[in-house]
Amino acid sequence: MVIAIIGVGLIGGSMAITLKEKGLASRVIGVDLREANLQKALELGIIDEAASLEKAMQHATLIVPAIPVDALLQLLPTILDNAKPHHVIMDVGSTKQQILQLVAGHANRGRFVAAHPMAGTEYSGPEAAIPNLFTNRTMVLCDVKNSDEDALELVETVVEALQMRLVYMNAEEHDLHTAYVSHISHITSFALALTVLKKEKEQGRIFELASGGFESTVRLAKSSPDMWVPIFKHNRNNVLDVLEEHIHQLEQMKKLLVEEDYDTFYKLIQKSNKIRKILK
Amino acid sequence: MVIAIIGVGLIGGSMAITLKEKGLASRVIGVDLREANLQKALELGIIDEAASLEKAMQHATLIVPAIPVDALLQLLPTILDNAKPHHVIMDVGSTKQQILQLVAGHANRGRFVAAHPMAGTEYSGPEAAIPNLFTNRTMVLCDVKNSDEDALELVETVVEALQMRLVYMNAEEHDLHTAYVSHISHITSFALALTVLKKEKEQGRIFELASGGFESTVRLAKSSPDMWVPIFKHNRNNVLDVLEEHIHQLEQMKKLLVEEDYDTFYKLIQKSNKIRKILK
Repeated sequence: MVIAIIGVGLIGGSMAITLKEKGLASRVIGVDLREANLQKALELGIIDEAASLEKAMQHATLIVPAIPVDALLQLLPTILDNAKPHHVIMDVGSTKQQILQLVAGHANRGRFVAAHPMAGTEYSGPEAAIPNLFTNRTMVLCDVKNSDEDALELVETVVEALQMRLVYMNAEEHDLHTAYVSHISHITSFALALTVLKKEKEQGRIFELASGGFESTVRLAKSSPDMWVPIFKHNRNNVLDVLEEHIHQLEQMKKLLVEEDYDTFYKLIQKSNKIRKILK
Repeated sequence: MVIAIIGVGLIGGSMAITLKEKGLASRVIGVDLREANLQKALELGIIDEAASLEKAMQHATLIVPAIPVDALLQLLPTILDNAKPHHVIMDVGSTKQQILQLVAGHANRGRFVAAHPMAGTEYSGPEAAIPNLFTNRTMVLCDVKNSDEDALELVETVVEALQMRLVYMNAEEHDLHTAYVSHISHITSFALALTVLKKEKEQGRIFELASGGFESTVRLAKSSPDMWVPIFKHNRNNVLDVLEEHIHQLEQMKKLLVEEDYDTFYKLIQKSNKIRKILK
């Protein structure tokens, strides 16, 4: 099967690598607005050729736009307008409600399968693409009742080749849950980085002491604004809800420190320790 | 050299393992209020024998209290009261100002070296002790001008055997910097865990989607309140300062989302990306 990857970055590139490795992709055509990305992807052997979207759609069966969610809102209608009955379009976007509302009435809606691989790193671009990025991670497929059966089956084959666990959800659930287990982690990391960078200017030396705990909570602050601002924009209401709750929790801890109520603080930490049952 | 480890947990136990491995410790005596910890540490071969503090001080040269900082405040004066001129006492506590104020005038102050290894995991107890916990991490020694020269030299030998980078600071600097690169990361993680656990009750399923980013920001929420409440207590003023700044940053992000000012949000993320220059 010929696969067109639109946006040859971390996610699109990693998918290309794995699907070729597994033999599911006989040929990968890369489409990208940035010529430099295409050159790099060719050099790294991630794609077999670079082409325009039009050209890519002439040859490919599976079309994977792997671009920020705001760019996807612009591009997906065009792709669907030009989709033929043998095409399957599978996105990888981190938010789902807006995009699915947009294409809800489209004549070729059935050719589209809304997918979100819960995998990534804080890096971006084709040089960030790696094998096994998706292994044992979760792939969420949304509102699959609106996809054609054969399109869904093809995407499920892709998910299997990527060695991912499959979860089905509606778009609303998806956007709510990702706000809690992904989007807020990024907001927190960005804010933590800003907090510490600000203090560093006054104090210097702070980072001599940075250890594993700091690195793990701040790592996500290296993530690209090109990807994340559109996500926060699309999932604004859910992100605001969880952000308010998070600020509330921090305010509560602050209050306990101000009042020196360490017994209640102790109980709060014990309660938060219950996260052990969820994380390994 | 015979070493007494008081509190045979993650830090004390890991130190025992490495110092024996490197040949610096000929024998390790474990002291612990919890009989179960001693039994476990004996079973695991982390310590060679279990004894009372008094007995341990009769045989050991180096005495390492590796206990929560509030327990250290209670115990250190007793240890110094009974210290002989050949004894060296080295702590591993995460805060330094209170403990150093407490022993400032003590006749045997010179035998004490205030140390803080910037290393750890979210686990605790002797079964959490591991080799190489300290490798390439930073050891901070505080106010070393108040330690006897030979005591300091012995501790520097220990630091070398642990393969740690050495940083000297005064206690005030230390407590300020650790608030920023360690304590706030834990507060944030605890609060994030509480936020998500609360929502989970209402929604369920949230954790099906938890991916690497979530795990890394919430991992620290598994940390023990026995260790962390005393740290927040001892470093209350610094922790409150940084917590206020962190809440301020989150409030700012919330405001930008409410106002849908995505351009400024973009710039903020770009600014936070500068953390790249500090983290690898």
